[in-house]
Amino acid sequence: MPDYPWPLGLDGIAYGGDYNPEQWPQEVWAQDVALMREAGVNLVSIGIFSWALLEPTEGVFEFGWLDGLIDLLHENGIRVDLGTPTASPPAWFFATYPDARIVTRDGTVLGFGSRGLAGPSHPAYLRASTRIASELAQRYGRHPAVALWHVHNEYGAPVGEDYSASAAVAFRGWLQERYGSLDALNDAWGTAFWGQRYGSWDHVNPPSVAPSVVNPAQRLDFARFSDHALRQAFVAERDAIRAHSDIPVTTNFQAGSCPSIDLWKWAREVDVVSNDHYLTAADERGHVQLAFVADLTRSVAQGRPWMLMEHSTSAVNWQPRNVAKRAGEMARNAFSHLGRGADAILFFQWRASRSGAEKFHSAMLPHAGTSSRVWREVVTLGADLQRLTPVLGSRVHADVAILWDWESFWAQDLEWRPSVDLDHRERVMAYYDRLWRDGLTVDFVLPDADLAPYRLVLAPASYLLSTAASENLTRYVAGGGTLLTSYFSAIVDESDAVHVGGYGAPLRDALGLTVEEFLPLREGGRVHLDNGLVARTWTEDLALEGARVVSAYADGPAAGRPAITRHQHGDGVGWYVSTALDADALETVMAPVYADAGLAPSGLPDEVEVVRRHGADADYVIAINHGDEPVAIPADGVLLLTGDVAHGSVKVPAGGVVVVEEGRTS
Amino acid sequence: MPDYPWPLGLDGIAYGGDYNPEQWPQEVWAQDVALMREAGVNLVSIGIFSWALLEPTEGVFEFGWLDGLIDLLHENGIRVDLGTPTASPPAWFFATYPDARIVTRDGTVLGFGSRGLAGPSHPAYLRASTRIASELAQRYGRHPAVALWHVHNEYGAPVGEDYSASAAVAFRGWLQERYGSLDALNDAWGTAFWGQRYGSWDHVNPPSVAPSVVNPAQRLDFARFSDHALRQAFVAERDAIRAHSDIPVTTNFQAGSCPSIDLWKWAREVDVVSNDHYLTAADERGHVQLAFVADLTRSVAQGRPWMLMEHSTSAVNWQPRNVAKRAGEMARNAFSHLGRGADAILFFQWRASRSGAEKFHSAMLPHAGTSSRVWREVVTLGADLQRLTPVLGSRVHADVAILWDWESFWAQDLEWRPSVDLDHRERVMAYYDRLWRDGLTVDFVLPDADLAPYRLVLAPASYLLSTAASENLTRYVAGGGTLLTSYFSAIVDESDAVHVGGYGAPLRDALGLTVEEFLPLREGGRVHLDNGLVARTWTEDLALEGARVVSAYADGPAAGRPAITRHQHGDGVGWYVSTALDADALETVMAPVYADAGLAPSGLPDEVEVVRRHGADADYVIAINHGDEPVAIPADGVLLLTGDVAHGSVKVPAGGVVVVEEGRTS
Amino acid sequence: MPDYPWPLGLDGIAYGGDYNPEQWPQEVWAQDVALMREAGVNLVSIGIFSWALLEPTEGVFEFGWLDGLIDLLHENGIRVDLGTPTASPPAWFFATYPDARIVTRDGTVLGFGSRGLAGPSHPAYLRASTRIASELAQRYGRHPAVALWHVHNEYGAPVGEDYSASAAVAFRGWLQERYGSLDALNDAWGTAFWGQRYGSWDHVNPPSVAPSVVNPAQRLDFARFSDHALRQAFVAERDAIRAHSDIPVTTNFQAGSCPSIDLWKWAREVDVVSNDHYLTAADERGHVQLAFVADLTRSVAQGRPWMLMEHSTSAVNWQPRNVAKRAGEMARNAFSHLGRGADAILFFQWRASRSGAEKFHSAMLPHAGTSSRVWREVVTLGADLQRLTPVLGSRVHADVAILWDWESFWAQDLEWRPSVDLDHRERVMAYYDRLWRDGLTVDFVLPDADLAPYRLVLAPASYLLSTAASENLTRYVAGGGTLLTSYFSAIVDESDAVHVGGYGAPLRDALGLTVEEFLPLREGGRVHLDNGLVARTWTEDLALEGARVVSAYADGPAAGRPAITRHQHGDGVGWYVSTALDADALETVMAPVYADAGLAPSGLPDEVEVVRRHGADADYVIAINHGDEPVAIPADGVLLLTGDVAHGSVKVPAGGVVVVEEGRTS
Repeated sequence: MPDYPWPLGLDGIAYGGDYNPEQWPQEVWAQDVALMREAGVNLVSIGIFSWALLEPTEGVFEFGWLDGLIDLLHENGIRVDLGTPTASPPAWFFATYPDARIVTRDGTVLGFGSRGLAGPSHPAYLRASTRIASELAQRYGRHPAVALWHVHNEYGAPVGEDYSASAAVAFRGWLQERYGSLDALNDAWGTAFWGQRYGSWDHVNPPSVAPSVVNPAQRLDFARFSDHALRQAFVAERDAIRAHSDIPVTTNFQAGSCPSIDLWKWAREVDVVSNDHYLTAADERGHVQLAFVADLTRSVAQGRPWMLMEHSTSAVNWQPRNVAKRAGEMARNAFSHLGRGADAILFFQWRASRSGAEKFHSAMLPHAGTSSRVWREVVTLGADLQRLTPVLGSRVHADVAILWDWESFWAQDLEWRPSVDLDHRERVMAYYDRLWRDGLTVDFVLPDADLAPYRLVLAPASYLLSTAASENLTRYVAGGGTLLTSYFSAIVDESDAVHVGGYGAPLRDALGLTVEEFLPLREGGRVHLDNGLVARTWTEDLALEGARVVSAYADGPAAGRPAITRHQHGDGVGWYVSTALDADALETVMAPVYADAGLAPSGLPDEVEVVRRHGADADYVIAINHGDEPVAIPADGVLLLTGDVAHGSVKVPAGGVVVVEEGRTS
Repeated sequence: MPDYPWPLGLDGIAYGGDYNPEQWPQEVWAQDVALMREAGVNLVSIGIFSWALLEPTEGVFEFGWLDGLIDLLHENGIRVDLGTPTASPPAWFFATYPDARIVTRDGTVLGFGSRGLAGPSHPAYLRASTRIASELAQRYGRHPAVALWHVHNEYGAPVGEDYSASAAVAFRGWLQERYGSLDALNDAWGTAFWGQRYGSWDHVNPPSVAPSVVNPAQRLDFARFSDHALRQAFVAERDAIRAHSDIPVTTNFQAGSCPSIDLWKWAREVDVVSNDHYLTAADERGHVQLAFVADLTRSVAQGRPWMLMEHSTSAVNWQPRNVAKRAGEMARNAFSHLGRGADAILFFQWRASRSGAEKFHSAMLPHAGTSSRVWREVVTLGADLQRLTPVLGSRVHADVAILWDWESFWAQDLEWRPSVDLDHRERVMAYYDRLWRDGLTVDFVLPDADLAPYRLVLAPASYLLSTAASENLTRYVAGGGTLLTSYFSAIVDESDAVHVGGYGAPLRDALGLTVEEFLPLREGGRVHLDNGLVARTWTEDLALEGARVVSAYADGPAAGRPAITRHQHGDGVGWYVSTALDADALETVMAPVYADAGLAPSGLPDEVEVVRRHGADADYVIAINHGDEPVAIPADGVLLLTGDVAHGSVKVPAGGVVVVEEGRTS
Repeated sequence: MPDYPWPLGLDGIAYGGDYNPEQWPQEVWAQDVALMREAGVNLVSIGIFSWALLEPTEGVFEFGWLDGLIDLLHENGIRVDLGTPTASPPAWFFATYPDARIVTRDGTVLGFGSRGLAGPSHPAYLRASTRIASELAQRYGRHPAVALWHVHNEYGAPVGEDYSASAAVAFRGWLQERYGSLDALNDAWGTAFWGQRYGSWDHVNPPSVAPSVVNPAQRLDFARFSDHALRQAFVAERDAIRAHSDIPVTTNFQAGSCPSIDLWKWAREVDVVSNDHYLTAADERGHVQLAFVADLTRSVAQGRPWMLMEHSTSAVNWQPRNVAKRAGEMARNAFSHLGRGADAILFFQWRASRSGAEKFHSAMLPHAGTSSRVWREVVTLGADLQRLTPVLGSRVHADVAILWDWESFWAQDLEWRPSVDLDHRERVMAYYDRLWRDGLTVDFVLPDADLAPYRLVLAPASYLLSTAASENLTRYVAGGGTLLTSYFSAIVDESDAVHVGGYGAPLRDALGLTVEEFLPLREGGRVHLDNGLVARTWTEDLALEGARVVSAYADGPAAGRPAITRHQHGDGVGWYVSTALDADALETVMAPVYADAGLAPSGLPDEVEVVRRHGADADYVIAINHGDEPVAIPADGVLLLTGDVAHGSVKVPAGGVVVVEEGRTS
């Protein structure tokens, strides 16, 4: 049994999905509820896109249908995750407040007809969205069926920025609060460059298109503001709800796919972290991306259990080629999320829509109905999850941390960086993939986080690294930690200004070097290292200040110069990798790094994923075999899905999953 | 002599082209007319872009130059296809009515300076266009030189949609007529999805850009409306003409290249169907595309003779690389159109323009003048066509029909379909190419057409298939027909809503199956069938309900599952092909299908095209050799181009054409 | 010593760069000046982006900081190139005059926040820019430190066209002046095509986006106007300066990278030509492009010495992949400019910016500071240039001229040309590269220039060639010159109208042919010539009128027809090459052409660049070895960089440079 306040009030893993019965005649509702019970569904999300039904005319509310729906679910023992419908205001809203429409960087006005996103800073939107949230909270805030509030939907998607006049006003206000004076803004933005100095707050605007590249510090601040503006809209709704309801509040994140949202800040505002995740169909190893997203979600949740609010039973509808999941894949995906800390496994959506933009999205109940593979697997998964109630509330521990900072990524993604091939996500994933294959569980952390819990910290692409964060990393190394930094890190400060002292200067003590000059490669270029590895994208001319050369460039623009270095600093070690090596090549690189950190790879085949959750009284080993051959893993304990007992090892079938309850071993 | 009312009053095949003498000083006109007579020209199209000359100021008309031109042509025995110049309003029109300019989906206003297209629903445009049409009809509506009215030019090109305020008003009116009530619109559009329900007609707008994908049913209806708006503008002009003239009216279609126009509806409004066709320069087998377009044009004309209003003597000017035709190619193209039902062979244009956007378009009289290959071939073709007067009015019969429904294509082309590789045109062309090589002539038909005349019906990509049309197809099979359906057919109804019962459900009786799940392939993916064929793009998980497996997948996501099936239903057979096979591979697939339908391929080499027109007293075999070797074809009768007589067979030279008049044999 | 009025008043090669001390605290300024002296800097450009500092509020000027800066430089013997800051108006300007913002072709308004370009025809901009220029001239126009006025910055970049309402007014005025009457405009633009005839000047507008391709003559005139509008803005500032200052005026061109500026016209307006040049990082042989740009700059300067106003010490910041220069490359680049006529070697910029869009641009003083390779090479180059004072003012002579006409390129770059593969720049560079490898120095000339000085004239892609210019070329041949013309030349006149008589007709006497028909190849297509060469992109059907066939097509659409011809006309020879051959293949083509012209290749290895400057008393041979092996070149005289003496030959080290002062030999 969990020893933490899991806020949902459920006594097992939550299972279910988005439920949009307003798309169907009422006679279908009864059938839905019966099938939900068959599938073991205990939680559904409703009302997310119902604003036009709940408030058909401004200020006029119609709750009757929702009353009936919630009662029906309640009668059938299905709890409700109740949405505020503010991700999609009704047609009347945009007709009444046309200047609340989103404006793009190039001045295009985005109209009604899809997800009807409105400008999050527009007063009319804030007024209307908090009003409907308040009305819902007053009516349902104490209903026993309601387990959770689901505010809005996927903040930041499909559009995260608004360049409208109302956004300009709010941006100016945010800047005034951030900088206090116009002089401070001019300094931070470096407006001496290209003659951009401001003499009046009224002249400051969002970074719309201009004749050339817009001030990067302005764009970085606008990214910060845009995230803030959405979060303020969330907070306003949340607080409107809290005035009438004690039920916990969430909003569904998109940790893996919405780069405009700084989840470190958002996670502090929700009562429980929830996340949506969809496989990238083009990626044949999408389960590694999935693991990464699950680890990132757990990390922003500070290790607390979290909810998988949406994933798919099979194909998604919005990618170029929407590859279907094959037999067993949905279960493997679900168990990987669970193994990495999810205590809720939910889908978009319960029943496939006949109409609209997402009709080709898979569902728990597909167009083909109950005589389908998908339905059969949905029922099986529901039953399996019911057997995992003991796992509820257990925690994941990691020995390795990877730095992850949305602000740094926003800065790095701006224009006119030294090479269009620079890709922080690719770099993080190369190292993550190496660790995944080596069976090493990863937390993501902010650069200024407490690093003491970790044996190894990786900084794969920490372009924006403040002096304070650099000092944090340096202290970590001095105190005995192992740090690996890769190229294009510690380049700029919070205002996207190059650090005094040159590239990497804030880490010179920890790494024993700075970077004299970037030597990016031409398109498709490759270089060799003297250890035989092949690298691409990027090389550098390093100025060593104590670091030892582990490997040098054999050719390319840095031929003969250091490529990989190791530096003893205090009680720890700082590694530096100045070029792009893929996950295969990183095996060679990481071996001595692991040795420095006192870590070892699991030794299991690459396609077997084993993660461990620590409960109050037992550990839970979740083993997932993504390969085509059965694999034996070490295990002692009860196999929760079958009730069998493992002595020393257990065989995980090809494509299969095993969950072992072990006595506490660590 | 033709036994039908060929409206042009010519006693032979029409030959000529667009004639724009306003681009030249008057001394050139006399030379033009002399050369037209040398080339055998008997019909020219004039006045198509002359609005600014005919009405230099609003309401002030100057017809003198046109009077003289028409008289000059008349004196030389050249008939006139008289244009209304409404495809390109004058500069004063846009200056006076700036809100009649076209607005794109993203709000860009399209100005004057090219083909000056105006919003077809704008009252000022409708007023001005019918006024000039009426003026022309009053002045020339009984002139003996005028054989035909040529209203506007290529409706739908270069732009088919208008998102302006005037279009919004007209769209709302069209929707009110279509749906009667807002509830009906909300139901049809599925506005419960994403909270799009409308509470007022005033809130309904064209589907301009929005934060995400716009309601597909709304977009489909806007495609219908846009086609309707253009057609209403045509009808208004036509009726303004008919008030003063009995001369037949046409407008030039672009059957092969303008997907926004529903020619089934347009063909009902014209007195004679005319079509523009340009080879795709990048396509080395463009003559197959040509044959397809010619067959489609004849099909929308319900089999009646039609006019090739425009094609090119050599290069066109607007493609990425404007490949010139080589010696003999223009004649082969012209005879292919003629063989497939054209009784008029016209060009854009008579004399190459020195100025403007199309100066590099070829012409009957090129920049190089009369000492050119092109001119010599133009003169030869004119003489050859004069020898084909007996062919005039004869008809083409086909045993095979392919379903063709612009509304279905509009729906399928919307966003967020299961794979960007889905391409209805490619699928239709793969099957058409197979039939072309097999010498089987094809009609195109609407899905709810009378299918009784056909031995075989193909539905290569019938995504939108209404219940009524599905029943029509099912009745056709039950009555003894052979139907072949390929994947992504019978998916949605008229409102782009998935059919109840799942994918393909409306055809379950005819095909003996439904589709449980789509299994699109990743980019570039290939799968094998157990008969050795290689397929791509798409596979499916079929749920058989009686169909027999003809071929199964050997690998890929559907490995071991059915790929091609055959189902006996009533007295007929329903075939289903669940993946993408090219024209080569379809030879294997089609052999047993042909057998079911009682058809057989011609057995001639692939690059020989033989089509047959049936006259009152004789058949006319048009044989075109696209290859580099002479080929003998079976023939008995008079060779119309030479006067020779064929006994049993005739040799068609490499690159050459033969027309044989045979005694009635069928 | 120079025998011409080199306006800078320096007694040696100018060396330095853009200096933006306003980006740094004042304590850095003293360090800057000390390091400048260490590096041999004698000229810096200041104030280019200082408008917001100099005029913080409209009409209020603050010159104190600039006074101090100029005095500091003066005290240290560093001369000043003083900018007018009008390339980037302040925020207050755009806030006060929002309709002075640039509008793009599609109507997008370009805001403030980058380089704050304003509409050059807007009255408020002209008023404000001449006011600040006048204020600067009054204050500093006689300051002894000021050597040069640097008006604006890179006219034409980042945007060269403005479609705003103020631009429309100015465009109409320019057209009225050009054409006098609306009839003349209608004739020139060929408005009879597509019904574009204008009845009122008020209806004429910039060629904004329209439903289809806009009138090409209108677009060509708008390109002319846009260049004119920028130039008028320059002239207005220049004249405002001249009212108060005798110091010479320049503005920095971008001869190689700004196609919208007609430098033939601009060079007439400046007192000294200056140019910015940046290597294209993706081009591994960028030094050939560099040589081309240097030759072009010298050519627009009519052979007078010119200034390299900006180049880079290493990476630039705005390309997709900003490849750094390697050891020695900066010096090779600098000496190539110098060898081709530059008497000033300046950089953007002195000290790398910490903030803003160009922080990753290299500088004389990089982020890494003075302990860097770049700094060491900067110091060495400064010292080397001081040794080259004798070279100052010497001139370059060329025997070969290539036609270069921006108006022709503007016309050729419009839409709907016969093939998207037509690329005038590529064609010019193929021939230039051949000549570069053969050691033949090139001048660029307008087609109507005096060609008498040249043995050989090349017209690689002279699409727009007026009748007068064609007559000039024909006279050149008749008088004994050798002319080589390649395809797509002499096609249209000044109004983009096809020449009467067909393609190439104006050159029929000189070449002995016209072009009957273009035969462009499909994408990636290749053809063979009967001499074994492989060609691509383009072939033609030539109509010979006396020319002799030198090589014919072996295959492709023109198989058997002439490919390369030679024609004796008067005392000279006209060659015609009808297809695209690369620089390797052109070796075969050019051998007999050189023979006709009495020229011979240098015979040196391909990667050795040798150019010669002619002084009053001596010649200066600048030899640059771009290869990896030392090369001996013939030389007699003093090696200026080392003081050694060469007798007969000198070895140029791999990657090295040698400058030899020879007694006058020619």
